[in-house]
Amino acid sequence: MKPEKDAYGQEIWTYFNRRAGFEIVERDDGYFHVTSGPRIYFSEFEEWPDHEKKAMEFVKGRVLDIGCGAGRHSLYLQKRGFDVIGIDNSPLAIKVCKLRGLKKAKVMSIDEIGEFPPHSFDTVLMLGNNFGLFGSPKKAKELLEKLYEITTSKALIIAESRDPYKTDNPAHLEYHEFNRKRGRMPGQVRIRVRFEKYVTEWFDYLLVSKDEMKEILEGTGWEIKRFIDSSNAQYIAVIQKHA
Amino acid sequence: MKPEKDAYGQEIWTYFNRRAGFEIVERDDGYFHVTSGPRIYFSEFEEWPDHEKKAMEFVKGRVLDIGCGAGRHSLYLQKRGFDVIGIDNSPLAIKVCKLRGLKKAKVMSIDEIGEFPPHSFDTVLMLGNNFGLFGSPKKAKELLEKLYEITTSKALIIAESRDPYKTDNPAHLEYHEFNRKRGRMPGQVRIRVRFEKYVTEWFDYLLVSKDEMKEILEGTGWEIKRFIDSSNAQYIAVIQKHA
Repeated sequence: MKPEKDAYGQEIWTYFNRRAGFEIVERDDGYFHVTSGPRIYFSEFEEWPDHEKKAMEFVKGRVLDIGCGAGRHSLYLQKRGFDVIGIDNSPLAIKVCKLRGLKKAKVMSIDEIGEFPPHSFDTVLMLGNNFGLFGSPKKAKELLEKLYEITTSKALIIAESRDPYKTDNPAHLEYHEFNRKRGRMPGQVRIRVRFEKYVTEWFDYLLVSKDEMKEILEGTGWEIKRFIDSSNAQYIAVIQKHA
Repeated sequence: MKPEKDAYGQEIWTYFNRRAGFEIVERDDGYFHVTSGPRIYFSEFEEWPDHEKKAMEFVKGRVLDIGCGAGRHSLYLQKRGFDVIGIDNSPLAIKVCKLRGLKKAKVMSIDEIGEFPPHSFDTVLMLGNNFGLFGSPKKAKELLEKLYEITTSKALIIAESRDPYKTDNPAHLEYHEFNRKRGRMPGQVRIRVRFEKYVTEWFDYLLVSKDEMKEILEGTGWEIKRFIDSSNAQYIAVIQKHA
């Protein structure tokens, strides 16, 4: 990744050094949004929403944290004795993870997880909407297959998403329609992150309802074990291998 | 102004209704920034920085508040018995001013101030960096001439700016150079405001050092009475007519 493309890492780097910064997300319909990052990327367990705290109870064994950001979940688990590796495609994010004390942190895209040996992990974390990193239903199925291989038989995927239909924002509803017309899932947002002059490449981020998630899991060997709801459209899925 | 261009008004409207929202400023070199608006546009006197509180002591008589936003200064002064009119080129901002109780609020661009009768005002407010609304040194001189006409002989302009040279951000220093090369003042930023899918037209916003401000005032009949400094690059100029 060229340094000028690492907008996500730059916002994390800035927040790490100066407790300042912001995250702008630009969607491909011209919709701009300011998220609650990078502040929440550095939040401590006590500040997390209840459904995220609850999700931690399901973590076991060796952990792969996909899209680990500034490492908030990885660091929490490492402190509690788990063997955890955080991966992120942002070099600066991984640099910050290491500076914050994460022992295993690696610049790596979700597309490269097939590089891990079989049966490497007992838990895969995809929190902070990172189910979205699957990008599309097709890519989700491919990556779920890879995740199946690199995990143990009793492994869990703990993945967060946001139900895109729980909105009354007309701009979002129009975007769903725009997506349907071009043959994409309504919540398959094409976005890029901006920070100062830094801007990432466009990428697909997949937001799904619970039913859509179930559909995507079909035929992958994975199934929903349970959902952990939040007070809003966010939810976490605990996903297990078929018996 | 077409409704979809009123990004500034939309962010104010959203904050007025939901205490949520943000303001993204895009500069024409691709630099994106999230400002502290709209929250500060609704701030009360107690929350203002000291130099802004201090500036209120100079206000007298009939007041014109140029670029009044959500009306924080106008409303403060109205409550204290001043005869104040707030103008803003954003229809939604003016709507919010009225809903908040500002008696005189008018959709009007700074370019239209010549419409006021001669000697209408004793104080002209251009706070919150609104010296920037002059746009360029040339336009500043033209507008200062109009302000001369519509104000009384002892009138004051109370205008805020930010010294653009008080920065060590390489992106800003590069932008100064970019501006010099195209024959603009270093702090003459060309920007547009974004909020969700709303985006304003590009406009010039002029940030000047104290010396540059003095130079701009030369030959206009206006002169610096005093500067009110802040703890950072912001400052307020109290500007009077030559004796």
